[in-house]
Amino acid sequence: MPRYKLTLEYDGTPFCGWQRQAERLSVQQVLEEAVARFSGEAVTSQAAGRTDAGVHALGQVAHIDLDRDWDPFRIREALNYHLRPHPVVVIECDGVGEDFEARFSALARHYEYRILNRRAPPAIERNQVWHVPVPLDAKKMHEAAQLILGKHDFSTFRSSECQASSPIRTLDILDVSGDGEVIAIAASARSFLHHQVRSMVGSLKMVGEGKWSPADFRAALDAADRRSCGPMAPAGGLYLIGVDYP
Amino acid sequence: MPRYKLTLEYDGTPFCGWQRQAERLSVQQVLEEAVARFSGEAVTSQAAGRTDAGVHALGQVAHIDLDRDWDPFRIREALNYHLRPHPVVVIECDGVGEDFEARFSALARHYEYRILNRRAPPAIERNQVWHVPVPLDAKKMHEAAQLILGKHDFSTFRSSECQASSPIRTLDILDVSGDGEVIAIAASARSFLHHQVRSMVGSLKMVGEGKWSPADFRAALDAADRRSCGPMAPAGGLYLIGVDYP
Repeated sequence: MPRYKLTLEYDGTPFCGWQRQAERLSVQQVLEEAVARFSGEAVTSQAAGRTDAGVHALGQVAHIDLDRDWDPFRIREALNYHLRPHPVVVIECDGVGEDFEARFSALARHYEYRILNRRAPPAIERNQVWHVPVPLDAKKMHEAAQLILGKHDFSTFRSSECQASSPIRTLDILDVSGDGEVIAIAASARSFLHHQVRSMVGSLKMVGEGKWSPADFRAALDAADRRSCGPMAPAGGLYLIGVDYP
Repeated sequence: MPRYKLTLEYDGTPFCGWQRQAERLSVQQVLEEAVARFSGEAVTSQAAGRTDAGVHALGQVAHIDLDRDWDPFRIREALNYHLRPHPVVVIECDGVGEDFEARFSALARHYEYRILNRRAPPAIERNQVWHVPVPLDAKKMHEAAQLILGKHDFSTFRSSECQASSPIRTLDILDVSGDGEVIAIAASARSFLHHQVRSMVGSLKMVGEGKWSPADFRAALDAADRRSCGPMAPAGGLYLIGVDYP
């Protein structure tokens, strides 16, 4: 059964997230319906990151199995045609071996969180940035971020609904860079806990506005307690930008 | 009568353009209605660039006169509150002298045109870029662009509905830069003819896909004839990014 790797871009605003839900529209549902429309096949797709409601993707990766052997280029064109009413696009389609699993083969996931740091709200990127009107010190945020790199118990930055069996993760990158009004936070790890990036960003904002020192941020991690987390950053600023495979 | 300079950001998608029209919603109308709501005053605003339907602004400049003397910070906050349902935001508000005219005092206008140059359409920036699926040679486009800098008769790149008294303009900057999938075209001049930027970009695209040489692009200018223009680029990729004043 031929397997295909799909690289996806989507605007998460109208969706309940990646994963199918009975009552609300998901990215998974519109993708699988587009597959059914062009191939006549009912498939179940699997994605590298189960993005939450409102979270965007520039490089989500999913895989599907089809009975028939299609030209990957034709799959991409057909899917983009059938996806048209929705803000979901297949950027790439590649044939892969049956040992490829979008979720389980992933070596690293890369996220970016975008903050618009100015007094005036955004006009153009309304659901695509976190608007923070108070001035943030991006350098201080970066300094704090470096203190939690590596392998830790990330319970502080974990949703109470997280279903992972362990709160231990290894954070490889947490870079904060400021470029005028836009502050971008890059986060990379083999995998993340549920709400981990948004929880870390919400806590970094506390550092940025001077309410926490970098040491306070590290102490929040060490507490390994959800109650030590700053207010979580909203979904609209978060982008899954890429996934690495062997 | 105190005069205020407003720097505006807006998403042009839902509007018929800057200028008021009887039947359709304009940026000017929503701005003036917001002014009326906070101040009780009926004003007429004037803008530096009369952007067309679908054209965006990151730094449009307008001015208004008010009877009362307000703190500019309060004006900005009040306008942003009343503008909220619309994708229009006041980034800055400054008190200025009565000799300041948003349109007539402008020394230079800066536009940027954004092309998404990849096979797959955009998911997130649907009305905010021109999607060109055929590969473009940005370096060749830049080379061509340099050939029309300076003072010329720009009739080729001028809408048949342009109301300017002369087709002579001085083009100071026309830079094409490619960064992966995104090609950005920066255009600066004291003033532009109606549809000039979109006409130049549409013709540069002909160069980018190899249908025109840079010399053909220059010859199109020299023809000083609208029929020599390439197909005009769509509105959604165009941004008024800033206006210079003395």
